[in-house]
Amino acid sequence: MKWFALPMLTRRLLIAALATIVALGSGLPAAAQEDPLPSWNDSAAKTAILDLVAQTTTEGGANFVAPGDRIATFDQDGTLWVEQPLYGQGFFALDRLASMAPDHPEWKDTEPFKSVLTGDHEAMGKFTEKDWMEIVAVTHAGMSTADFEALVTAWVPTSKNPIFGAPVTDLTYQPMHEVMELLRANGFQTWIVTGGGQEFVRAYSDDVYGVPTEQVIGSSIATKYEMVDGKPVLMRDPKLFFNDNDEGKAIGINLFIGKRPQIAFGNTEGDAEMLAWTTAGDGLRLGFLVLHDDAEREVAYGPANGLPDTKVGTFSQALMDTAQQNGWTVISMKDDWKDIFKGHLKKIE
Amino acid sequence: MKWFALPMLTRRLLIAALATIVALGSGLPAAAQEDPLPSWNDSAAKTAILDLVAQTTTEGGANFVAPGDRIATFDQDGTLWVEQPLYGQGFFALDRLASMAPDHPEWKDTEPFKSVLTGDHEAMGKFTEKDWMEIVAVTHAGMSTADFEALVTAWVPTSKNPIFGAPVTDLTYQPMHEVMELLRANGFQTWIVTGGGQEFVRAYSDDVYGVPTEQVIGSSIATKYEMVDGKPVLMRDPKLFFNDNDEGKAIGINLFIGKRPQIAFGNTEGDAEMLAWTTAGDGLRLGFLVLHDDAEREVAYGPANGLPDTKVGTFSQALMDTAQQNGWTVISMKDDWKDIFKGHLKKIE
Repeated sequence: MKWFALPMLTRRLLIAALATIVALGSGLPAAAQEDPLPSWNDSAAKTAILDLVAQTTTEGGANFVAPGDRIATFDQDGTLWVEQPLYGQGFFALDRLASMAPDHPEWKDTEPFKSVLTGDHEAMGKFTEKDWMEIVAVTHAGMSTADFEALVTAWVPTSKNPIFGAPVTDLTYQPMHEVMELLRANGFQTWIVTGGGQEFVRAYSDDVYGVPTEQVIGSSIATKYEMVDGKPVLMRDPKLFFNDNDEGKAIGINLFIGKRPQIAFGNTEGDAEMLAWTTAGDGLRLGFLVLHDDAEREVAYGPANGLPDTKVGTFSQALMDTAQQNGWTVISMKDDWKDIFKGHLKKIE
Repeated sequence: MKWFALPMLTRRLLIAALATIVALGSGLPAAAQEDPLPSWNDSAAKTAILDLVAQTTTEGGANFVAPGDRIATFDQDGTLWVEQPLYGQGFFALDRLASMAPDHPEWKDTEPFKSVLTGDHEAMGKFTEKDWMEIVAVTHAGMSTADFEALVTAWVPTSKNPIFGAPVTDLTYQPMHEVMELLRANGFQTWIVTGGGQEFVRAYSDDVYGVPTEQVIGSSIATKYEMVDGKPVLMRDPKLFFNDNDEGKAIGINLFIGKRPQIAFGNTEGDAEMLAWTTAGDGLRLGFLVLHDDAEREVAYGPANGLPDTKVGTFSQALMDTAQQNGWTVISMKDDWKDIFKGHLKKIE
């Protein structure tokens, strides 16, 4: 019988029994165990996460996983931090274009730069992939990897999300921090698997998420080895090397980790293959999708479940259907998360 | 004053003093400290390795490195295991061709297969990159990543190096095992950075070297995400995705790790950029090249230092000059290694 086919009450009772056993095993009374996920309301998602941790770490159990094989993967935009009204890295590109504009007077009359510099959001909404690659080429390439890292590091504290009026790195979800910490405390490696730029995310991943650079998989452009003043540098070339979206997420996990995750978190179409690859493995494997259904505390968008449509981080009804068919758990930000942000960050309006 | 500019005796005395201080710090008498590199003779290489470990792990010291940033990289063929008369993976390709030949009668009259199947070593010595890619295409691709891993795993114990009459995984260098263990005991991640196939090496890296799959960087072909019987599989596509040789080694280290190593080991032209990238960093960074100068216990080849020339694992005089200019340490297998193999494996002849 499948776990998720059990009635909710039965599942809760089983989890409570399991928690007691774990607590007894640790020599501590059950009451003394602190909730490792205090920002989560009791929910199917919370229960499933705690159950997976208990089962994969119980030696001798059917779903025990050796510590070196315990892998968890997390999408970033919309899963670990806010992606509305635009991806954090999008703001970086726009800020950088604006700061470079004085040296490029020709951009005033050239697309796609003109639309960006005049703040024409309607035109930007229609940008093609080629348009974005042109923007990436001038804002993310033509410099060394070290110079790029320095640029991102300097930009982060100056960044400002217009909905919350705070730097992008303040907009991380406290419940997801707790999941990452719980997993790491139980011997899991917590990898970021992002459609965003690998080197962009690496500039802050350790500080912000406790994830070291070598556990960040992302999209990347090519780099070229060149000698400058007798020393080797890696120059960023405006050519896509790896697209870590959709099928690329499964391919990237195999390329960088070489092991299949036990648990994966995403929030959009681009994460479906990561979850499919994860949950197709033997033993206990779980997939989760964050649904942005909290208009009051964050931003409500889908268009699944009748939520407003969006071009940034689409969660379609088709994805909702796929989740149900595959037994993936949908996390409702509104119902499942007691707190969304550390420090109770609030929207400006 | 640079460490390596000190006379050897002074360096030895300093190391002895350092060892005593470390031993005192640990509360044990110096005499009770076991040599962590027992298969090494006293040599500049051994001294330099021990010194780097001491300096990078001494908190408050000028060259202290935080544990999460301690990175060591190792080439495989010729650095961690025997690469003569042919790379281990070359034997895999040849064995696999032979086992597939009955289903491919046309290979008897088609190059490059004909030369391989008739054992024409002279013709094989002249194979172009295109010839090898044709062999890789039929032996390494057209199957899922899981099936490939199973093939390699099954092949390894049946493999036989003709010089030593033993499976390829028996031909690893004991002194290098000791270096990897010493570094790991001191908080270093020990990464393999090989020109060989990433998925090939991952099939045995944990068992043989204690290196988990996620710390193996290698050359790779592309993979395709496909649905088979309703489940996703990654199919190996006969198209080069990443060439982890020469400049590719520096690029690969940045791509997979995102941190610069403190210490790197190689043995051939293809490792020069990895060592250059490593030693161009701030602080104490060391590069090492293994010179195969022991005709009695292993195979002598260069052509540096007048050693016999080779097409497999060339160590040219130009590389020797580069090593000297950059302050890289050359490890003499003959003089610096007390034992080469665990269990004192011997050549057949």
